[in-house]
Amino acid sequence: MDQVSCLRCMICGKDHDPRKVLYVCPSCGVEGILDVVYDYPLIARRLTKERLSANRDMSIWRYLDLLPVLRQAPRPPLKVGWTPLYKAEKLGQELGCPHLYFKDDGRNPTASFKDRASAVGVAKAMELGHQVITCASTGNAASSLAGISASVGLRSIIFVPHNAPQAKVAQLLTYGAQVFLVQGTYDQAFDLCLEASSQFGWYSRNTAYNPYLSEGKKTAALEICEQLGWRAPDTVFVSVGDGCIIGGLWKGFHDLLQLGFIDKMPRLVGVQAEGCQPIRRAFETGQPVQTVLPRTIADSIAVGHPRDALKALRAVRDSRGFMVAVDDGQILEAMGILARKTGVFGEPAGVTGFAGLLKALSQDRVGVDERVVVVITGSGLKDVQAALKAAAQPTHIEPTMAAVVREIRRAK
Amino acid sequence: MDQVSCLRCMICGKDHDPRKVLYVCPSCGVEGILDVVYDYPLIARRLTKERLSANRDMSIWRYLDLLPVLRQAPRPPLKVGWTPLYKAEKLGQELGCPHLYFKDDGRNPTASFKDRASAVGVAKAMELGHQVITCASTGNAASSLAGISASVGLRSIIFVPHNAPQAKVAQLLTYGAQVFLVQGTYDQAFDLCLEASSQFGWYSRNTAYNPYLSEGKKTAALEICEQLGWRAPDTVFVSVGDGCIIGGLWKGFHDLLQLGFIDKMPRLVGVQAEGCQPIRRAFETGQPVQTVLPRTIADSIAVGHPRDALKALRAVRDSRGFMVAVDDGQILEAMGILARKTGVFGEPAGVTGFAGLLKALSQDRVGVDERVVVVITGSGLKDVQAALKAAAQPTHIEPTMAAVVREIRRAK
Repeated sequence: MDQVSCLRCMICGKDHDPRKVLYVCPSCGVEGILDVVYDYPLIARRLTKERLSANRDMSIWRYLDLLPVLRQAPRPPLKVGWTPLYKAEKLGQELGCPHLYFKDDGRNPTASFKDRASAVGVAKAMELGHQVITCASTGNAASSLAGISASVGLRSIIFVPHNAPQAKVAQLLTYGAQVFLVQGTYDQAFDLCLEASSQFGWYSRNTAYNPYLSEGKKTAALEICEQLGWRAPDTVFVSVGDGCIIGGLWKGFHDLLQLGFIDKMPRLVGVQAEGCQPIRRAFETGQPVQTVLPRTIADSIAVGHPRDALKALRAVRDSRGFMVAVDDGQILEAMGILARKTGVFGEPAGVTGFAGLLKALSQDRVGVDERVVVVITGSGLKDVQAALKAAAQPTHIEPTMAAVVREIRRAK
Repeated sequence: MDQVSCLRCMICGKDHDPRKVLYVCPSCGVEGILDVVYDYPLIARRLTKERLSANRDMSIWRYLDLLPVLRQAPRPPLKVGWTPLYKAEKLGQELGCPHLYFKDDGRNPTASFKDRASAVGVAKAMELGHQVITCASTGNAASSLAGISASVGLRSIIFVPHNAPQAKVAQLLTYGAQVFLVQGTYDQAFDLCLEASSQFGWYSRNTAYNPYLSEGKKTAALEICEQLGWRAPDTVFVSVGDGCIIGGLWKGFHDLLQLGFIDKMPRLVGVQAEGCQPIRRAFETGQPVQTVLPRTIADSIAVGHPRDALKALRAVRDSRGFMVAVDDGQILEAMGILARKTGVFGEPAGVTGFAGLLKALSQDRVGVDERVVVVITGSGLKDVQAALKAAAQPTHIEPTMAAVVREIRRAK
């Protein structure tokens, strides 16, 4: 793993040996602020655009040189990443945003972006010889960890708030995870999971806490740039809950800038739900993040006490991006528009980045020449109840042609 | 489209010009019995293993030379096909079937195998200048057609039996399809759809009726062989409803045999639910297919009056394969084993092929040296209620460490 130079604390700036430190900065004792620092000159000798172009591994592991895992260590077999990047010609024209792309991360094996982080987390757990891996999650990280652990025979123990959508819980139970449905919020489930992992010695796949997860998430940024022929987009819209995805995207673009693969950092736009926007408030006010009680249909970003706020805020500020908040009605509307106009079916949090783009366009915050990528972070099949709210009603008919003719005429 | 020689009737053997004939043999007047016949010597000059190996189009369109569409015609943008083929090392060892592979077709854009057929159907509708496309479906073909039509702005009108799972209906409504929920069986919805498409001039994406759909479905066989390095598997297990998927797989292997890309036809094993096995009964008895009233949890193959029985029976007989029936308990058990041991989460009909393999292994119908591929035809997220039946229960706890410790000790 000579490509990793050190783990660097975002607060005190001290460097630590990644073979000795796991989650917490030994100097300042704060959790979730370790950055993985790479030896870019070494990586540049190994990884070139030409080699990538010849590489037929269409998964996150095509970027192995830029990932914090041992080259020879076992990796989970499920195919994670290299999700499609679609140019939305017609919809882009209609919206006055003609260079519009969607990165459909619902196409990952457990149908969410979180598989990128879980794949790296599970690879690390295997590398370190752990038998048990754990996380707390609003749902997607949980089903993702359960699925990817199942593929390698690793035991997973998952803490989920009791109000997580049924599809996500069904999925992780089917994968054979041991599931604790916590009678409390996601934030309580998170704290409980940290304490349990420390007490029982389980490997912790917890957002922010584990510094390797954003390294998995950054692969989406690497893919976007490669899929655009190594031209960085101008602006990227993505939903924000804990803040780990947007932090990961920043890291990916940062890596590519260091390697000279792209020539600029895209503006990163973080989108939160109006009923749960602690990171947006901190961004706007410059004050520390205040915990809130989440109220939104977008369960995957219903995070009142975001764990990766520091990296999220760095991402938005460093990239000269901005934050947007959208209400649940706008989220459901975005879900319908996206599905009807592009065939991409996202869950509420999955399409919140797109709802943010629609709002930003209405506020003239996006120029007509900009090349815009919207990251869709999870499949609509994850939350069918929400989809039903966004959709029209079916027409019930008896099985006769007379009924069909009547309804077709009525629709005209 | 010079790669297509003709449409040949499976019954009377007459050849027809594909530019003049759509669905029905003009000689014998029977529906759903047209085969697409290719000019293999011409194709062999265009398509080589080397060219495929250099082709970076990781979708069904990499096999354009073997598909019945115009080279220059527009094609739907959603990425269909090139789904993962996983080798299940550990599970294979446990089952005494060490060369075991799963083709995970739940990874298609609308999360089922049906996207392969819909992509070709929508491409044909666009090529022929249609504004409306229609189908009847137990659910997956419907949501697939709705999604792929949405991606190109084609209007879709869908006939679904009223008892189709909520997730599938939600999905197709979100895609903006016009949906008729028919108070009757799938078979009634099918007849109604055929009549309406004929009366209103809509393009018909109906299984068996439209001869191009099995051409889309055959791409899974092409992929399996390419992913195995052009060594054909010995045996392929797949669930059977209408019979179109197994018929399509046969066609794909047949094409590759004609081109000399593989050296044998794999045994094709069709698996039906015990509560709905008209094709298996016809196979075993040699009698014509008898319509039954479907009774199974596997809604996608709950087809009492299978439309593609002729092609399905040809597939099994010609390949010296066999048919198996499994009960709903075996289907749910297979769902759990697959998810826990491989991380692949399939819906009931999606894993029915695997349930069939488990049964065939218990009957010594599969040898230990055989290279076996099981096709998983749809994602478990399509039917969460079924998944909940297959899964263990979560543990409800209050948010305290005492509760965690108590439950962990209890589990030991």
